[in-house]
Amino acid sequence: MLHKAMRYSLFAGGKRLRPAVALAACRAVGGRDDDALTAACALEMLHTYSLIHDDLPSIDDDSLRRGRPTCHVRFGEATAILAGDALQTHAFLVLARHTPRTEAIAPLVLELAEAAGTSGMVGGEIADIEAEGEPPDVAVVEGIHRRKTAALFRAAAGMGGVAGGAGDETLQALRVYGEWLGLAFQIVDDVLDVTSDPATLGKSAGKDHAARKMTFPSAAGIDESQRRARACADAARRALMGLDGSGLLAALAEFTVTRLR
Amino acid sequence: MLHKAMRYSLFAGGKRLRPAVALAACRAVGGRDDDALTAACALEMLHTYSLIHDDLPSIDDDSLRRGRPTCHVRFGEATAILAGDALQTHAFLVLARHTPRTEAIAPLVLELAEAAGTSGMVGGEIADIEAEGEPPDVAVVEGIHRRKTAALFRAAAGMGGVAGGAGDETLQALRVYGEWLGLAFQIVDDVLDVTSDPATLGKSAGKDHAARKMTFPSAAGIDESQRRARACADAARRALMGLDGSGLLAALAEFTVTRLR
Repeated sequence: MLHKAMRYSLFAGGKRLRPAVALAACRAVGGRDDDALTAACALEMLHTYSLIHDDLPSIDDDSLRRGRPTCHVRFGEATAILAGDALQTHAFLVLARHTPRTEAIAPLVLELAEAAGTSGMVGGEIADIEAEGEPPDVAVVEGIHRRKTAALFRAAAGMGGVAGGAGDETLQALRVYGEWLGLAFQIVDDVLDVTSDPATLGKSAGKDHAARKMTFPSAAGIDESQRRARACADAARRALMGLDGSGLLAALAEFTVTRLR
Repeated sequence: MLHKAMRYSLFAGGKRLRPAVALAACRAVGGRDDDALTAACALEMLHTYSLIHDDLPSIDDDSLRRGRPTCHVRFGEATAILAGDALQTHAFLVLARHTPRTEAIAPLVLELAEAAGTSGMVGGEIADIEAEGEPPDVAVVEGIHRRKTAALFRAAAGMGGVAGGAGDETLQALRVYGEWLGLAFQIVDDVLDVTSDPATLGKSAGKDHAARKMTFPSAAGIDESQRRARACADAARRALMGLDGSGLLAALAEFTVTRLR
């Protein structure tokens, strides 16, 4: 039942954007796709665990995700909590057990754990919960988005670079790219929650507003949010300057904002 | 609030038995305490995360732990879920960031993740939930205990050995020791749930029976459970045969069953 619940959420579709960023970053630094596969899988497992837990009744209480009933609706709350827990563990297990270049394991684990923890994703989650009902503020919401979403995109680009054997300077450029990309992605997500419908989104729409979530549109309006998302995607592309082979990364930045159209 | 909840549960006392096993195993193979400190901290963080999540209303619904209100009673369910999540992440972060011998990082992460995941702790948790109300059976309950509890003790001994630079044969002996120790510990825990009171336990007593949990006493009776616990502790000590400097490990095995008196 546990594995069934893990697979149910992990293989529910989704854009696989974080794995795509990791693979593209690895290619950009001249690595082989095989080198970055563990990073790609670990990122998607980590991300899926966070979705399962965020959807729980005591957190966002969501019943629809990737076009299907959420994990706890389908399998019950206890199994959903444990499936999320096990997916997090499995992310680190896959890195430690299957990464081809063993010298990359420790930095990959470090990069993922930093992004997932209290100064990254989970820290952003709690800030998001604590900000519910507060007066919307652009600086606050950007701070939340940088941790809740952009930290893992930053790690995706960084891990792809590490897996491909990039040097420090290139790694830093990739991380900056990833953080701007993640911020653009989350602002677009906020906008789509207002302007789109559940069938298109594959998850409940209008939930942010109903939950009095602090979002970019609530703090700055739709037009300014769209402008800001494009500016972030441009900043992501600019961070790649001078990096040969980064065409796919640039295309992913462009893809992120084309969802607005 | 997140860090407060993490610290509340992590520093609530407890026997620190898993860290003690890791440090003792490191000493037994001639390592320095400093080498095993990250393993010790990671094990306690991992264990504490599992307690926080197990105590949640949708899992064991427990209100008392280590003599204090459980994390969700004190901080609310959302914060407790995220505090548990972050403690798991932090366990891997500490290993990757602070382990003195960097060549030990990858095997330490692997050992911890294997013990924590679906073939270890979380797998045992779900088996435990699924067995509730089923006819008690010694083989089934021992299988659950080996995964739910003994896997992490096995990892504690193995990680201490890895941190101290042990060779493969010694590592294997330490892991066998750890698994028997963990099984002894869990059987004693089951017995104390029946024979003890909450003030002594620091957690609710009689909960296993109320929840129709499959325990060693329910499957084999109190007397046979006590005999089996002692036999497991003896097996743990026997696994150490030939390992100089394992006096502390042997003493920990003895300590585990003295709680029965």
